[in-house]
Amino acid sequence: MRVEILCTGDEILTGKTVNTNYSHIARRLSDVGLDVHWGTTVGDDRATLLAAFRQAGERADAVIVNGGLGPTVDDLSQEIAAEACGVKLVLSEYWMERMTQSYARRGRVMPANNKKQAMLPEGAEFIDNPIGTACGFAVTIGQARFLFTPGVPREMRRMLDEQVIPRLLKLGGITGVTRLKRFHSFGIGESRADELLAGIPGLAGDGQERGDIKLGFQAHYPQLETKLAARGADEADLARRLVPVEAEVRRRLGNFVIAEDDQTMESVILAKLIEAGHTLAIAETFTGGNIAARIAPLIGAEKVFKRGVVTRDGRVPAEALRKEADASIALSVGVQLDEGPDRPDFGANISVGIANAQGSVARQARLVGGRDWVRVGAAELGLDCLRRHLLGLPVDERIDFERR
Amino acid sequence: MRVEILCTGDEILTGKTVNTNYSHIARRLSDVGLDVHWGTTVGDDRATLLAAFRQAGERADAVIVNGGLGPTVDDLSQEIAAEACGVKLVLSEYWMERMTQSYARRGRVMPANNKKQAMLPEGAEFIDNPIGTACGFAVTIGQARFLFTPGVPREMRRMLDEQVIPRLLKLGGITGVTRLKRFHSFGIGESRADELLAGIPGLAGDGQERGDIKLGFQAHYPQLETKLAARGADEADLARRLVPVEAEVRRRLGNFVIAEDDQTMESVILAKLIEAGHTLAIAETFTGGNIAARIAPLIGAEKVFKRGVVTRDGRVPAEALRKEADASIALSVGVQLDEGPDRPDFGANISVGIANAQGSVARQARLVGGRDWVRVGAAELGLDCLRRHLLGLPVDERIDFERR
Repeated sequence: MRVEILCTGDEILTGKTVNTNYSHIARRLSDVGLDVHWGTTVGDDRATLLAAFRQAGERADAVIVNGGLGPTVDDLSQEIAAEACGVKLVLSEYWMERMTQSYARRGRVMPANNKKQAMLPEGAEFIDNPIGTACGFAVTIGQARFLFTPGVPREMRRMLDEQVIPRLLKLGGITGVTRLKRFHSFGIGESRADELLAGIPGLAGDGQERGDIKLGFQAHYPQLETKLAARGADEADLARRLVPVEAEVRRRLGNFVIAEDDQTMESVILAKLIEAGHTLAIAETFTGGNIAARIAPLIGAEKVFKRGVVTRDGRVPAEALRKEADASIALSVGVQLDEGPDRPDFGANISVGIANAQGSVARQARLVGGRDWVRVGAAELGLDCLRRHLLGLPVDERIDFERR
Repeated sequence: MRVEILCTGDEILTGKTVNTNYSHIARRLSDVGLDVHWGTTVGDDRATLLAAFRQAGERADAVIVNGGLGPTVDDLSQEIAAEACGVKLVLSEYWMERMTQSYARRGRVMPANNKKQAMLPEGAEFIDNPIGTACGFAVTIGQARFLFTPGVPREMRRMLDEQVIPRLLKLGGITGVTRLKRFHSFGIGESRADELLAGIPGLAGDGQERGDIKLGFQAHYPQLETKLAARGADEADLARRLVPVEAEVRRRLGNFVIAEDDQTMESVILAKLIEAGHTLAIAETFTGGNIAARIAPLIGAEKVFKRGVVTRDGRVPAEALRKEADASIALSVGVQLDEGPDRPDFGANISVGIANAQGSVARQARLVGGRDWVRVGAAELGLDCLRRHLLGLPVDERIDFERR
């Protein structure tokens, strides 16, 4: 099935807003095994929108349109969809009533221009928006089914998962249930992770079809996300095939897995600190507050986080910090930068120290790749050492990013 | 002139990489008065690329193509451009020699597959890449001039400014020189800035043509960027018309202007601290290290930044911090959060204190908009108070984001 994404709006077209809706939609489609073949961006202009709808209608089987469903005059998606279909706009009494009630619940009167959002092309399929006033709809233009979604990211994301993707799977004759399992790792690059996971029965690598669980990676330095996209006849079938593969991926990526699914490095660390009844102090140099900023603002950190210290030069010993801040565990990350101006081979020697009542451990590493690369990597390395220490894992395991 | 942007590559098409190249190109074109009419994204696929080139060639006057100029087999831009033009690929001896020399200067031998990057459609116009091995080129497909640029952002950005935009201006019959003047502000929203700048002679607002200097805004909370795009017959003509408008914009935005052009809030603060011979200490609560992280890692901050302290609860008085850290000036930002879970009307009371040898000043503000909104706003407010204090401006000037 050929799927296209068509994004509308002057803010996107002129680059004022970076089009993260596009990448979100494309990734989610890929997660469920649907591939995007074409992306189009056009502005809030009648002639251009009409041309874009018609051209996509000739190329694609399905088109997700994003944007242009708002109440203002420059929101044109319903109007141009009706024109492309050769029908008129008709009022959806149902959606008008839903919007009116929604305003009434908040003690407000619906503004008159919201009526525009209940005007849909005659014969269109209604697509629900449970959290906003811009409902979606679907029509056929040319040979393609067009599914319209609002530009507000929160609304689009929910409607995509709950309303649009199920319709696309049905259109493509794809049955069953899907699940996306995610592993977050630190310390291994994409190519090494790909090697580590080679040959797992039932797992199909990028572009290969050796199994029915699709493997994908998304690198966002310093972390790597490993994704398993699975489809099954039903939940039991899905679990039967996914669970052993998940376990094998977890085993092979080993200590490098810092979190799974919606967990983060910092949420894992905080949960472990709370569980162990710890209080935490952090000292950092070149990372300049970035490590504390990952932990201190978390909900629940108020009882754990005692104190952060940021110095520009010199390293604060973890044991001294622990005593000074009256914390049960202390993390100190010192960075000794190379001399001279920033450059691609600019590097630093990182010293991580962790102290608790039982004693202290240390970890040395050299990172190279420019000031920002080193700063981001040093913060992650420090947090990962703390995670490993709390979980009883080796703190001194070599990572792909370091030089020795 | 109808200009399109055509981005190629599976990473972009599938959403693995967010397409920031598109938004950069579109913004830069807008800065020089060129409007983008259509954006297309396609993958590394022969048939799709050819169709995309042909369709854009029917719609546009000029098309900027981004990506697909690399040395690997999935980089197809030259090949498909040649096919669309009905010509064959020929070796550019000039570019081959340039690449060979570039490798030789670094003591390396050029890999054989780089030769592919010197294969250009017969008759193509060469476009120089001064910092990479992917040269650009231009050909005519259909009724449009196609200008090819590499996907590496650093290379694309430089070639866009130095090579592509001048060619587009020439194509469009647009002569003279252009300049983009930027003001960065904190504390005023886009609509208020638009009001403040209304009626300046020679300045044309968004979509209006009242003057020949174009006004534009780019909001990235908590900062707002105000842009003046000007075109003149020559540098003298440009200066004659731009300088008085710049001065008037600076006057009207007043104390809210935190920096101009490539300056940042933190670079302005650091320069002022160095000039005054100050040393700095920072204490912060809910911002959790984010304020220190803006200043401490800067080049030149090592002699100025003495110490940062991050606490979760309770505010450190600026005067006590100053003495404890042995600094000549201290900034303390305390945040008292509302109770309960995160929500759109979640807020906080911000207390900013600044102390130096002469005494101390304080500033209170209430910000509302959810935990992250408050955290980002509080950090910016704290830094802005320090900037204002160092420049002798009133610290307690109401900003648009606060509630009273």
